[in-house]
Amino acid sequence: MNADYINPFLVSTVNVFQQMLALELVREAPFIRKEFAPQYEVTGMIGLTGKTTGTVAVSLPCDMALAITEKLLGERPPEVNAQVVDAIGEMTNMIAGAAKAKLEHLQFNLGLPTVILGCSTRIAFPSRATPISIPFRSSLGPLIVEVGILA
Amino acid sequence: MNADYINPFLVSTVNVFQQMLALELVREAPFIRKEFAPQYEVTGMIGLTGKTTGTVAVSLPCDMALAITEKLLGERPPEVNAQVVDAIGEMTNMIAGAAKAKLEHLQFNLGLPTVILGCSTRIAFPSRATPISIPFRSSLGPLIVEVGILA
Repeated sequence: MNADYINPFLVSTVNVFQQMLALELVREAPFIRKEFAPQYEVTGMIGLTGKTTGTVAVSLPCDMALAITEKLLGERPPEVNAQVVDAIGEMTNMIAGAAKAKLEHLQFNLGLPTVILGCSTRIAFPSRATPISIPFRSSLGPLIVEVGILA
Repeated sequence: MNADYINPFLVSTVNVFQQMLALELVREAPFIRKEFAPQYEVTGMIGLTGKTTGTVAVSLPCDMALAITEKLLGERPPEVNAQVVDAIGEMTNMIAGAAKAKLEHLQFNLGLPTVILGCSTRIAFPSRATPISIPFRSSLGPLIVEVGILA
């Protein structure tokens, strides 16, 4: 995957968290994930189609997903419910949308965001689109943004 | 979701299994899934963008994913590895591609197929795109095709 595709997702994630949640993210070193490593418990996913295709996955622990939903809705849901799914889906959509604007030449359209739940879930990309993982830390917990785009 | 969108996915799944795997699928009654029910262990997912957006998920047990990969490659992988991920991703792509051809007016483009692994994984759609689930039986095991498309 072209490393130039990574920076727009990195910047967009930081901006969306700052603007939408007033939350500062500290970025850690990106890495290429070759194994099927487990994700955090809640993962928003969205597909990209255009001059090429790709997928963005934003993975975070349950507690952080609940805290983000609380920040957005003003009330903490008792568990991971449809409100949390919609909030994390929308957050994923905003990150992908902001990155899309910075990758105008790829003419991306965004798919429907879905949310994967499960504590030992692994998300596997096709071998021709090995994802790059970008870990972040925040006062609410860690998150990982993964981007796999066909070369 | 418009029920007219379901039949193309149903027919495409049966055809892809027949043509690609010489496997007859027996269809069971479709249902609307409202809960976050666990899927089978291996789920191929692909996003659709066009006049509307959607996601197709094809969920099946590990054993069946291994048997399908064996049929396609002539050799059974020892475990769910990159070959299985690619085979199930490609199968999902073929089902979505065949359905896309039957839904020409929606002008769908297909995203990158990803594969979700995990035995208690749940896949949640946004509340505005409640999926319809289509269960099938076969001599290799069961599978469920889920389609969520914005109305």
